[in-house]
Formats: sequence, C-alpha cells, structure tokens
Amino acid sequence: MAAAQRLLVDIHTHVYLPRYASFLRSRTAAPRIFSRTTPQGLTEERLLILEGEPSEGRPVGPQYWERDEKLRFMDKHGIDVSVVSSANPWLDFLPAATAHSLANELNVDLEAYCSTSPGVPGSMLRRLYGFGLLPLVPEVAVSSLLETVQQIAALPHLKGIIMGTRGVGRGLDDERLEPVWAALEKAGLVVFLHPHYGVDGRAWGEKENGHVLPLALGFPFETTIATTRMILAGVLDRYPALKLLLAHSGGALPQLSSRLASCIAHDPAVTARLQHDARFYLGRLYFDAVAYGSEELGFVSDVIGRAGKYAERGASAAASRDGGAEQRRRGSARVLFGTDHPFFPPLGESAKWKSVVENLEAIDGVWGWGDAEKQAVRGGNALALFDLHSS
Amino acid sequence: MAAAQRLLVDIHTHVYLPRYASFLRSRTAAPRIFSRTTPQGLTEERLLILEGEPSEGRPVGPQYWERDEKLRFMDKHGIDVSVVSSANPWLDFLPAATAHSLANELNVDLEAYCSTSPGVPGSMLRRLYGFGLLPLVPEVAVSSLLETVQQIAALPHLKGIIMGTRGVGRGLDDERLEPVWAALEKAGLVVFLHPHYGVDGRAWGEKENGHVLPLALGFPFETTIATTRMILAGVLDRYPALKLLLAHSGGALPQLSSRLASCIAHDPAVTARLQHDARFYLGRLYFDAVAYGSEELGFVSDVIGRAGKYAERGASAAASRDGGAEQRRRGSARVLFGTDHPFFPPLGESAKWKSVVENLEAIDGVWGWGDAEKQAVRGGNALALFDLHSS
Repeated sequence: MAAAQRLLVDIHTHVYLPRYASFLRSRTAAPRIFSRTTPQGLTEERLLILEGEPSEGRPVGPQYWERDEKLRFMDKHGIDVSVVSSANPWLDFLPAATAHSLANELNVDLEAYCSTSPGVPGSMLRRLYGFGLLPLVPEVAVSSLLETVQQIAALPHLKGIIMGTRGVGRGLDDERLEPVWAALEKAGLVVFLHPHYGVDGRAWGEKENGHVLPLALGFPFETTIATTRMILAGVLDRYPALKLLLAHSGGALPQLSSRLASCIAHDPAVTARLQHDARFYLGRLYFDAVAYGSEELGFVSDVIGRAGKYAERGASAAASRDGGAEQRRRGSARVLFGTDHPFFPPLGESAKWKSVVENLEAIDGVWGWGDAEKQAVRGGNALALFDLHSS
Repeated sequence: MAAAQRLLVDIHTHVYLPRYASFLRSRTAAPRIFSRTTPQGLTEERLLILEGEPSEGRPVGPQYWERDEKLRFMDKHGIDVSVVSSANPWLDFLPAATAHSLANELNVDLEAYCSTSPGVPGSMLRRLYGFGLLPLVPEVAVSSLLETVQQIAALPHLKGIIMGTRGVGRGLDDERLEPVWAALEKAGLVVFLHPHYGVDGRAWGEKENGHVLPLALGFPFETTIATTRMILAGVLDRYPALKLLLAHSGGALPQLSSRLASCIAHDPAVTARLQHDARFYLGRLYFDAVAYGSEELGFVSDVIGRAGKYAERGASAAASRDGGAEQRRRGSARVLFGTDHPFFPPLGESAKWKSVVENLEAIDGVWGWGDAEKQAVRGGNALALFDLHSS
C-alpha cells in the first residue's frame, strides 16, 4: 500500500503514565516529582531524576503524561505512528515485589493508552504502540521477569520492552539474564536499550555546565558500555535473533567499534570465546536516528552496512573500496527515526521542536541515501521491525 | 620536492626514555616496572601503569626504551619520520619539584634522541622528532609550566608537547591553565592530548575482559570528556590558533558532536558564553588516524569538513546535500597517520604489526578520499602541522 510507505514513525518517544507520575509525586527521594513556587509566584512541578541533579531537575507538565499532548505533538510534526516507551528510570529504584506489580499495571495501562488511540487514516494501524516494562531490579525472581515477558507478548499493542543497563543489578552481561534474553528472542519483542545513569559524575569536573555533559556524553557512554559488555559476554552469539534497538544511535559504539575489534584481537582469551569480529555484531543491532546530524547517521549506516564483511574473527580491516555507497544504503535498513519527546522541548514559542526538525533534516541530508532509504528510515524500517501491518 | 610528498609520518608513537624507565624501576607503587620469573623460569620485566590493572600489567622490553628498536620498527613498516612522545602516565604522579626537574631532563634527553637520529635520505629531515613534557601536576607553579614551555620551544627537534587530561589537578577547563594555553599558542607547539585514566572502573562490571573495556572505551571516553570540557570552558574561543591534536581520532567526540551541539542549544546559559556551535570547534582540531577502520576515518573527516557551516551558534543542522564528497576531502587535511607503537604488539611472529597494517589499510580504503588525500593523511598533513621542511 503506497500510503504506508510514506508514514512517519517515531520509535523513541517517552511517557510517564499517569499511574507512574502519581507514584513519583508520592516519593521524597529521587526519582520524584515535586511542586515549587516560581519567583513569579506560579506553582510548577519539577522532575528530579537523579539526586544532586543540576538545576533542581527540570519542569514537567502534561506533555509528560497526557495522551492528548502526545497526539498534538505528533500532529504538529506530521508523525503518523509513535511507539511509546516509559521514560527513565523506569522501575529501577523499587523493591522487587513493588516493581513486579507496578510493571504489570503499567503494561496494562500502556496497552489501553495504545489500543484506544485513534486509527491512522487509510490504514489498519493505530496511532500509538508501546514498549512494556520488566521488573528489572536486584533480588527479583527470574520467574517474575519471564511472567512479565509473557504478559507483554500477550498485549497486542505492546511490541517490545524498554530497559536500562543495570539488569538485575550487575549489568546486562549477567548470566542470570540468559532466560530473559531467550524469552524475549522467542517472543519476537524488540528490546529498546536506553541509558539513565551515565558514568561517574566526577568526570565532569567542577564547572557549571547544566545537564550538557551527563546528557551529551554520559548517556551515550552508558549505552556504549552496556552493549559492548553484552557483545563480550556472548549474548549476541547465543541469541542471534534478539532484536536490540539502541538509543541515541548507539552512542559511541559505531565510532569505537573498530578499536574494540582491535583490542579484542590483541587478547586471545576474549577472541577465543566470541564467534565473530566485534564489528559483525553491529549488523545485528538496530539504531535510532536520534543523533542530530546527517554525517552521524550516514556513518551509523556505514558500520551496519560493513558488518557482513566481519563475520570471521580476525577479519581484515580493509574496506572494499568501491562498496562505500552500496554499503551505506544497505546499512540504512536498521536506522529508525525518533524524537526523544517530551525531552529537549523548544526554548521559545516555536511552531515545531528544534530537536525534531533537526533529526528530520539530518535524515534528509545523508550523503548517499536515496529517497527510498530516507523514507525507510522515516517509517518503513519501523513498520518492518515492529511487525506493524498497515492493511 | 616530490619525494617528500610520499613520506610516511607517524605522529602517535611512544617511548619510555631510559631515564624514565629507570625511574619506574625504582618505584614500589604504580606506575612501576618490576621483574618476575615466568613459569618457564625466565626473567621478564612488566609494566604496571595503574594499580589493580588486569593481568598484572603487560610485558615490556627494549621496544619501550631503545631507539634502535624504534628505528627497526619504522624500517619494517616503511615509516620515514616519527614524532615521538613519552607514554602515559608521564609525570602525573610526581610531586611538583620532581616533576619540574624530571620534565626538563627528559626534554633534553628527547632532543638528543631526535637530533642524533639518522637523516631521511634525500631530504633535510631527521627520522625522529618529539613531543616534550610539562610538569602538569597539582601544586606546580604556573611559572614552572611556562619555563618548561620556553625550554621546549627552544629545543629544535621538539615540535609540541604531550599531555594527559588532569592539568594541574582539576582538568583542562581550569582557568589556572590560561597562561599555559597562551604560551603554547604563541610558541606554535602542537598539544597532543592523550588519555590515561579512562572512566570509573565500576562501569566495566565483574566479567573478565582483560584490558578490552578500559582500552577500547575508557581511553576514548576520557579524551572526549576532556576536549568537550575545553570547548565548554571557551578555551578554543580564546586560543583559536592553539594546535590541539586528539589521540585515537578524538575518541567519541565526532559521533557525539551534533548531540553535544543540541544539548548546548537547549541550555541558554551555556549557549550564551560560547562563540560558535559546538560542531564548529571540531574544524579547529587535529585528529590522529588511529581508529582501525576506513569508515571511522571517513566520518572523522566529514565532521572536520562540515565544521565551517557551524560558525554561528544555533546554526541549522541541515547538511548541504551535494557537499558530502567535497566536505570529506576537505576534512582529511586534519587527519594524521599514527601507530600507537610500542603498544598493541603482534601476538605472533608476524613480519608486520597488525595494528599498523590495519591503520594503513584504513587510510587506503576511505570512500571518497583520492590519492592526494590519502597521501596527505599518511604524511603531508604532519609535515605541515609540525612545520617540518624536507628541503
């Protein structure tokens, strides 16, 4: 159906569901939502995600929890379909029993949020689909995680899960997660890997830079580390059909992937336990297009497109010299438009959000992508990955 | 002179000068060199750079300190000229007085190491040039730093300095370094910024991965953070002619530069104090070509080549769609071949080092670079940056 080929699909867009927002309001430690009076005498709610965050967190309002706000944002930017995920820090901070029950409730809430959303005109699609939550916290029983995977798999508008990088307390290279990867792979659920913690804040020094360093660098570093640890632990070897989608275009993983391959090649013990050159695994991953620049997106598609050359351990680093354009087009199939809404809101009364406009312009400007690749990144790749049938 | 156009110049190659190696042997805490008996009954020396390093550090031998070994390595790989730098952790761990006197002695040693090296046949060049050391440690007097800049500037074969990211204890965004940047800019010395500390090791988790995570990710993260903090502090605005060369192709800075620009654009206080969009500054930097992959090098040259479009704060992110090839060629002028010798040695008895072969193949395979760009990256850019005249 020709119209479906032109849909704009946002796969990186967040919500604090009303139940979750209420829960955050009840808390006295981060993460929490609190009210304060502004110097102008107005009452505002602020979200504090991490203790000691700069600027006492950030202002929050209905765009964080009201579905109508999400739909208005989508309409303003021409977004036909959004695959919505809870925003960090999810359930990471909760005791296991609370995390399990709240996950189940929020998954049901999100299913309703999606299933009752308007339809996309001229297609069988709804405007909203979702990523569910697992109770990924220390001390949780693996059976709780597996039950929740089954719950999500049975909710027709939930197409995946979003998760942070801590797993059940020891990261995503923890063998206790093996049955969870197996279940997610079998269910065909997309795993959206998203940062929250960054890296140790002492690295940012003593100067006042607001959220710039933890957001611009810490977030992508965290995603890079988590994915690399999964590769090194053999998770991608054991679950080759696992659909792993990386936030923020994979952070720094693409740019450091050949260095990673070289460091592995110089360590016989690590080399021996992996089936492939490190660069091969990037061809198994999916990357959002939330990188704000055309050159970045083109490069991400290069590292995806080259991955097939690195199936063998110790493969030669030599690029096929004439393959650059074809390789770049091929790699575009695993890059997917996203906005990061409702974060990075406009500073002024602009009609459109700068962050969204930039990410759309970035797709449009990639050197070597034709119209077919650009449209696939805007929506077609998402329809395929999430198995969304428009007719 | 045509021959000079074909020289291969290695700008990322390290030495522990004999005086420094002796000093490390005298120490009982890291960094230190110690002897141990192998299971085969042989005596070997090992270098422990950081306390608690995996595998009790690494074996070291004459390739770390003997000049003849450096020259043999160069001959084996066809390297005509090397700009040699002391390896980390330099003088970072020393009290100020010791650091100052040892810096001065090592600078004189390195000048002798270079000035008495063989000449490059058919040119006026020597085979070896060097980066000196400043006593960049806490409590050092700024006058000591400035004296040492003058010492280095007066030594004819030293063309720059190498430094870590701690400055005088608070990083490179510390205003106490302002007179040092001013002096380095005025002297025209290249500042080679190189990592040592990585990021907090708890990020690497509990699995046994040897040096892979701190080397493949920690090192580039450290360089990325340090350079970003310099940009945010306005150092590159105040010292526009400072020649700053980033190790390992700038780490993750190129891939995160548009995200950095977006985060800055959403923080009015940070935006207001900078003269340019963050991406502009990447066009003022120099990047080694130690990235082990063609796609990485092509991308680094893209972000250099696009920088001119981002002179204005809040510049549009839209790429000029037909400019991809030209932009990539232009950016190659600030990318320079390097080897990281004597690190990443071959595992077996191979004739050539895999790490070097890969970095040369990477240059050769960049999509969109012609022969002129490839040769410039191999050597011509270094001759220009370090003001090395072959005739």
